[in-house]
Amino acid sequence: MDYPQESFVATTFAPGSFWARRREVVRTQTLRHQLNMLKTTGRYDAFKLKWHPSYGDPPTVYPIPNHQFWDSDVAKWIEGACYLLIDHYDAEIDAAVKELVQMIQSAQHPDGYLNIHYTVVEPGKRFTNLRDMHELYNAGHLIEGALAHRLFFKNDDMLSPILKYVDLLAANFGDQDAQIPGYPGHPEIELALLRLFKVTGDEKHLKLAQFFIEERGNPSSGKTKRHYYDIEAEARGEKEHERPAYFPASRSYSYQQAHVPIVEQETIEGHSVRAMYLLTAVTDLVRIFRPDSKVGTTFLPAVNRLWSNMVERKSYVTGGIGAIKQWEGFGIDYFLPHGTDEGGCYAETCAAIGVMMLSERLLQIDLGSHYADIMELCLYNAVLTGMSLDGKAFTYVNQLASSDNDISERHEWFECACCPPNVTRTLGYMGGYIWSHNATETSAIINVHLYTSATLRVPVSESVVEITQKTDWPWNGDVDFSIQTNGPPIDLQVRLRIPGWAGSWQINPSPENLDIQKGYLYLNAKWLQQHSQFRFSCPMKPQVTRPHPLAMQPVAYITRGPIVYCVEDFDHLWEEHHFKTTLFDPHANLREEPRSEPDQYVAIIAENGAKGELDMSPWDKRIVAEAGTAATGEKRDLCYVPYYLRANRGGRGHMRVGLRVE
Amino acid sequence: MDYPQESFVATTFAPGSFWARRREVVRTQTLRHQLNMLKTTGRYDAFKLKWHPSYGDPPTVYPIPNHQFWDSDVAKWIEGACYLLIDHYDAEIDAAVKELVQMIQSAQHPDGYLNIHYTVVEPGKRFTNLRDMHELYNAGHLIEGALAHRLFFKNDDMLSPILKYVDLLAANFGDQDAQIPGYPGHPEIELALLRLFKVTGDEKHLKLAQFFIEERGNPSSGKTKRHYYDIEAEARGEKEHERPAYFPASRSYSYQQAHVPIVEQETIEGHSVRAMYLLTAVTDLVRIFRPDSKVGTTFLPAVNRLWSNMVERKSYVTGGIGAIKQWEGFGIDYFLPHGTDEGGCYAETCAAIGVMMLSERLLQIDLGSHYADIMELCLYNAVLTGMSLDGKAFTYVNQLASSDNDISERHEWFECACCPPNVTRTLGYMGGYIWSHNATETSAIINVHLYTSATLRVPVSESVVEITQKTDWPWNGDVDFSIQTNGPPIDLQVRLRIPGWAGSWQINPSPENLDIQKGYLYLNAKWLQQHSQFRFSCPMKPQVTRPHPLAMQPVAYITRGPIVYCVEDFDHLWEEHHFKTTLFDPHANLREEPRSEPDQYVAIIAENGAKGELDMSPWDKRIVAEAGTAATGEKRDLCYVPYYLRANRGGRGHMRVGLRVE
Repeated sequence: MDYPQESFVATTFAPGSFWARRREVVRTQTLRHQLNMLKTTGRYDAFKLKWHPSYGDPPTVYPIPNHQFWDSDVAKWIEGACYLLIDHYDAEIDAAVKELVQMIQSAQHPDGYLNIHYTVVEPGKRFTNLRDMHELYNAGHLIEGALAHRLFFKNDDMLSPILKYVDLLAANFGDQDAQIPGYPGHPEIELALLRLFKVTGDEKHLKLAQFFIEERGNPSSGKTKRHYYDIEAEARGEKEHERPAYFPASRSYSYQQAHVPIVEQETIEGHSVRAMYLLTAVTDLVRIFRPDSKVGTTFLPAVNRLWSNMVERKSYVTGGIGAIKQWEGFGIDYFLPHGTDEGGCYAETCAAIGVMMLSERLLQIDLGSHYADIMELCLYNAVLTGMSLDGKAFTYVNQLASSDNDISERHEWFECACCPPNVTRTLGYMGGYIWSHNATETSAIINVHLYTSATLRVPVSESVVEITQKTDWPWNGDVDFSIQTNGPPIDLQVRLRIPGWAGSWQINPSPENLDIQKGYLYLNAKWLQQHSQFRFSCPMKPQVTRPHPLAMQPVAYITRGPIVYCVEDFDHLWEEHHFKTTLFDPHANLREEPRSEPDQYVAIIAENGAKGELDMSPWDKRIVAEAGTAATGEKRDLCYVPYYLRANRGGRGHMRVGLRVE
Repeated sequence: MDYPQESFVATTFAPGSFWARRREVVRTQTLRHQLNMLKTTGRYDAFKLKWHPSYGDPPTVYPIPNHQFWDSDVAKWIEGACYLLIDHYDAEIDAAVKELVQMIQSAQHPDGYLNIHYTVVEPGKRFTNLRDMHELYNAGHLIEGALAHRLFFKNDDMLSPILKYVDLLAANFGDQDAQIPGYPGHPEIELALLRLFKVTGDEKHLKLAQFFIEERGNPSSGKTKRHYYDIEAEARGEKEHERPAYFPASRSYSYQQAHVPIVEQETIEGHSVRAMYLLTAVTDLVRIFRPDSKVGTTFLPAVNRLWSNMVERKSYVTGGIGAIKQWEGFGIDYFLPHGTDEGGCYAETCAAIGVMMLSERLLQIDLGSHYADIMELCLYNAVLTGMSLDGKAFTYVNQLASSDNDISERHEWFECACCPPNVTRTLGYMGGYIWSHNATETSAIINVHLYTSATLRVPVSESVVEITQKTDWPWNGDVDFSIQTNGPPIDLQVRLRIPGWAGSWQINPSPENLDIQKGYLYLNAKWLQQHSQFRFSCPMKPQVTRPHPLAMQPVAYITRGPIVYCVEDFDHLWEEHHFKTTLFDPHANLREEPRSEPDQYVAIIAENGAKGELDMSPWDKRIVAEAGTAATGEKRDLCYVPYYLRANRGGRGHMRVGLRVE
């Protein structure tokens, strides 16, 4: 049972390649920048358990204290740092991790409890508000941090206190009389416990995760046979109408996917990051028990159903999910406005990272290119846009269209700082997303999900299979593979994903019979022995696409390969209205223009692509008029750049992905 | 200073004419139906101050007790009944009004207080929650009921207790030390007090209304210099995050237009009925003080600014306002989805009635056809759709597009029953909207805002000017006028509104020089003396219109004259998806088809107007595809019927106003 957070160590990115360069920026710039932010904001020292002035601030979002996530901010930074230290040692980062781990050790209560807020700010209130507070979420990130720490440091300095904390949690939560029948408002610990179980083999870890998952949304928990969040809220003396700012209605637990048990959920609802972390854990649980087990047949149909609802009806062209700001999550089917001033567009960076996590897990259960297509889409667009080229500025929300009140920009940090270190750790174990592999004594299967210049080394018995891809992806669709086996020949199968966006593709030399299953090209041992080098090609060309008609968006997008494009005022100095009123000609000639500044990319010039500005005069002082959509003014070229590159070159922050076609 | 609730008595509708028939239904069917609903729901007897079992029900919408509006339901029915009794005596209705008035009299506290909830359910808590409870709103409707009662009964049986109640209110509310510096969460009493002032001439009534208006939104009320709703909430012991279900955020007083003082409001926000009632009162205050007074120059610019924001950016093709269900009101500019499952469409019947009220008042300050256009638009569409042809079923919400979860239908009553009696009273004083007039000793001005078959009698000194229009409006745009003066000739001016939707118009015989001011054709005394009969014609033809491009709705509407059309499954048995996927050809030939069942109207047949069904196959299992909008299947005729007629002929409740054009 594989996790990308472990398997990534088998991958080496070719120096100077797309991902090698991004990871280099993270290693040399982002880690330090974020360490500095941890220090200046008080997070770095928070495990020293001293009072920080900000602890007295009123919550920006009721009822969550602003410092509620500090434990996880530190843990996620440690996790990312440890992944990157494996590639390249850095004494300063190493020292910071060690100091943080010492602080975490010393912050632990004698009984194992470990949480900043409930030690410093509200002692005595632990486990009284699982619904809103991020106590168990923080614990989950501490577990993931400890696993990464162990991977690099090869000691238990961090894992040991965390295991003691998990013992406390396992004693406190469950369906026994003396236990709390609750589960976290923000899932995370479930997936962390399942990863922990793989390392410890301790059934207690599996059991606790399974309890959290199976109990979630139970309308009759505990002795009183009520929904646990109701029991808990009443125990806190909370009135029915005292509700968190992010609840659409009082006690509407769809926000945290606890409105009904997971298996009864028909559509994906609520907070999008929570949904992704939860479904990732559920998928891991299914992987552990196997899909044909009772657990598997119970939960896998729900995961598949919710996945389909999400990718077919509730996600954006960039892979981003969540239209609704209030609960940072999903709206109704096909309700996908493109910007704040058009009705909403949230598409949180962490949520897209969650989609990658979930799709990677689903690929391991059921190898199918539709999962990998979404994973690649999120990676190059909704996730990659979350960090600036210099690695020092980040997004939380990733709308597809800017406006005066909400320009296209990045920030060095956030009060709720989940996204920046999440990008760091994701790029840290990036190699784990490229491919997955299974090896037995004499055979190996390598599934290639993403294309980039990298090498994977898979030990099989006494041999090592080394598979290398060389490509200019995502700018060029030619990928040269070479395979070497150091030792006796093994029974190797390589499966190459055929991207869903590829209009055509070829492999050269080509097998006589193409064995394609669910969008993967299966290459068998015999052919591979004869062809240790081959080229897989998916020609990339600009494509004009449209959103689902029921989304009611009269716009067209430009994509090329996995990359979604946008327009920015930087390239269009004549532009004044965030491209809201620019009329796009979907039949314009699209010319590719390779560029090297501020980074290597392919721009797309839509020749005379701007038919002009929308003629708004018929609607002067009225909301309805007897007129069709018409252009006024001169035709001009439009310059499209990758969405992830936006807000890297200056300008006024005018940006738009989908331009009006009617 | 005129009010349509008084001036309507000068109008007689021609028997069998459009409005005469609607008013006949209201008189013979609706009044009795609603009286029956008042009786069976407990409202009729509620002023007996006995406990009703429903008083113990939990609020459907926290924190408003469901019976909170019962006083106003009764008062509005009395108001409507009295208007209709003037036209046609009805012993049963007369007796019911008298009995209700007796109950109201006997429900009054010795000190004048008069409210069901705070007498029976929460005695001792009067005036402790002006923000949420409808105490002063109810008082306003009681005042309006009493004025209508006095108009018909010509006694003070109802007005007298109400005046005593108003005395109590005037003593309790104001800026003196011992007074409460508060104002109603739901405006209504302001406009009622100003109407009362006209009758009583009592400065106290004017002053109280003015205080409520000027104090509204004051960030530093009372001795503690705070927002009154904050003061009040804290006095109730309410925590900051205990918020009504309809607040977008804690203490966000834009819901009731009290976020800032009215004069500082830049955009129209919050609950749409409240906004309309408030601005109507503000306009009345400006009328009383005159537009060039300090009050006028202070408030009129705000009213005009908010009006423009509403009609240019926040209203539907039907005149309906309010996209957002949660707060029954306005969203952001141009955010105007067409149905519940497309992101929202509220367009409450009462809100459209409020738009009529406000536009009528604005017409009296500044005669301009743009106000009357909106008034007519609301009347024939957003308001008229609120009642079935048989007068016994009503709407609250008036979406432009149905869906499986929210079909097009009417109901016999509502738990919150504001809309049904509001339609009743509006049709009761309908004559007041047709025209307005000013008469001096020797002269008269008659402004004709709406066209229908009716006669207006204006006494001028010893003469009576009688102006009659005869027309088949809204189906035919020819209007025959005849004017008679019974007595010495007077200096008469008649001003005819030229509808904004009219592509052309003519008057026959025609004056040599056409004097047109702000969309009204001014006919002077000299010409009128020579032409006591003339015909004004605005040819009506089907028009294909489109929403403002920034509304991002790829649809087209069909209108004809003031009527907005829709399609219903009743005429399209092949239809299965609420016309969501029907592709409309905006260039289709539009044939008019006069019909007489279930009522006289002109249907519009778009010949081969359905290009087919949207071809959704490119988007199968995906949210974005490389495809344009295309039709599949056969072309068919589409039958458009007036939107107000919807849901009168059976069918499955599939209905849509704007059909996709791309």
